[in-house]
Amino acid sequence: MSGGRVIVISGGVGGAKLVLGLAHAVPAERLIVVTNTADDFDHFGLRICPDTDTVLYTLSGLADPGKGWGRVDETWTFMGAMKALGGADWFSLGDGDLALHVLRTERLRAGANLTEITRDVATAMGIDATVLPMCDQPVSTKVDTTQGRLAFQEYFVRERCVPRVTGFEFNGIDTARVNPALAAALADRPEAIIIAPSNPFVSVDPILAIPGMRDLLRGCGAPIVAVSPIVGGTAIKGPAAKMFSEAGHDPTALAVARHYQGFADGIVIDELDTGLASDVAALGLGVEVLPTIMCDLQTRIDLASQTVAFASRLGGGLER
Amino acid sequence: MSGGRVIVISGGVGGAKLVLGLAHAVPAERLIVVTNTADDFDHFGLRICPDTDTVLYTLSGLADPGKGWGRVDETWTFMGAMKALGGADWFSLGDGDLALHVLRTERLRAGANLTEITRDVATAMGIDATVLPMCDQPVSTKVDTTQGRLAFQEYFVRERCVPRVTGFEFNGIDTARVNPALAAALADRPEAIIIAPSNPFVSVDPILAIPGMRDLLRGCGAPIVAVSPIVGGTAIKGPAAKMFSEAGHDPTALAVARHYQGFADGIVIDELDTGLASDVAALGLGVEVLPTIMCDLQTRIDLASQTVAFASRLGGGLER
Repeated sequence: MSGGRVIVISGGVGGAKLVLGLAHAVPAERLIVVTNTADDFDHFGLRICPDTDTVLYTLSGLADPGKGWGRVDETWTFMGAMKALGGADWFSLGDGDLALHVLRTERLRAGANLTEITRDVATAMGIDATVLPMCDQPVSTKVDTTQGRLAFQEYFVRERCVPRVTGFEFNGIDTARVNPALAAALADRPEAIIIAPSNPFVSVDPILAIPGMRDLLRGCGAPIVAVSPIVGGTAIKGPAAKMFSEAGHDPTALAVARHYQGFADGIVIDELDTGLASDVAALGLGVEVLPTIMCDLQTRIDLASQTVAFASRLGGGLER
Repeated sequence: MSGGRVIVISGGVGGAKLVLGLAHAVPAERLIVVTNTADDFDHFGLRICPDTDTVLYTLSGLADPGKGWGRVDETWTFMGAMKALGGADWFSLGDGDLALHVLRTERLRAGANLTEITRDVATAMGIDATVLPMCDQPVSTKVDTTQGRLAFQEYFVRERCVPRVTGFEFNGIDTARVNPALAAALADRPEAIIIAPSNPFVSVDPILAIPGMRDLLRGCGAPIVAVSPIVGGTAIKGPAAKMFSEAGHDPTALAVARHYQGFADGIVIDELDTGLASDVAALGLGVEVLPTIMCDLQTRIDLASQTVAFASRLGGGLER
């Protein structure tokens, strides 16, 4: 691997696992994590950024290792008191987690942007890698379902992904602007672009939907490699497989490859899906078969290292 | 006692003790608690109303019996996380307490006023008496000291009342309006006005400084009785005695009587201050000597009952 930056595009829990591996495999000054902010929403008047926070908590070692989101050693006194006061209780906010939301909301109201706030929080948490929200403008994913249109967290948390999905819309995306720090890094010959094993529809697509984002990523000269979030016909976490099915596709790593076809240069699929490798290759994508189920830190680091190495090999032969 | 309303003017901890006694001594539908809101302030972008909250927690049984403020069975995870993020830690916000501040801030931003929010919170907490913030407009006490001008909570909490006070200003008081629900109650022949044993300078005076408030209270026909917060030359809680001294007065119940002279009709002083009774009477104030140190619920109820009875006796002979 040469010395350029590795830029990883990530959603929440699943993506954050690979991000943590990358933080161990790539020197901090070369790692940029771009987080999905289309899940962000206001709750109790506080600005919540679930994916960005999961990445921050994971990188800082503050994440709850059991749940994969929220903080370790969390308490829940706030939620109990809020419920007693008649407040909504469908979205759980831990007492320690609240500090981040309260601080961010206060700073946003005072005029700071999400990039500045995220930088300062990362610094306070001792995170050396660069964490960049995809943009500083509010974007909010709406999920169209057979039960009507739902805000993403309503669909994801309140309704537990039960409603059948008919489509997605990223409100505000037209006026979103690629994070300027990301644009600058893309103009500085990055080494590789990694798409973490996050939900293609609601974690990665919003990032790619920012006007100009796809062209900047494709045009930067670095190989683009996605890690499939679908393994053995199911998603390790979350509704990705269900969403593929509801869109009329078998939920397989091949469907993931088709989703990124024409954008990504290669895809990492799990050993369980070795049988799909030739079909993926037939789409014109490079394929790497690796153990992708990240059950401990070492498998995360290994997957991260091998994914970057795969990207570097692809990069050597890129013709665009 | 007849059947009119008892209206009590209260600050935080000290006043809330008498308020709790009144809640046991007076039928809920006849009790109105008017709280000082000049201590209210914004912290972390949240609207904090210390005196109103102390009254709400005390009346609902949620108050921490040891501290007298905040909630019983509180946790402090938020403050720890906030401090780790670099946030200010001089004002402690408990995790459960936060629910009230977050809910109130959200509703204020959505356009509700403090009276509506306080009513709904009191209802959710099972409080039957009426709790009214003194006004719905923001007022903020500034404490002028030999170290410069301080916001009240900076003086009270951050600086622990150490700076020598040279004066007070109630910012915003000129545009504050007497709580309309209080004005309506005052127009409906109340039985008694009780000034709780709260700090005269920073808890009671802001309420009385609202334009028109003194005239409404004096003009409603009900006797006005203050319970001295100074006992035996010192304040049971808080900086009242220090403030009297710094204003050049011996901190005694007599000084309290002089403070309310021309406004109150009578004053309740403690048995420890029996020797001051004739001097207080010489000011033209009715005097009642009672045990005023409210160390348990029964002494609060007794003091409340006897104070109301004292007021009723004074009321029979009022000539205004």
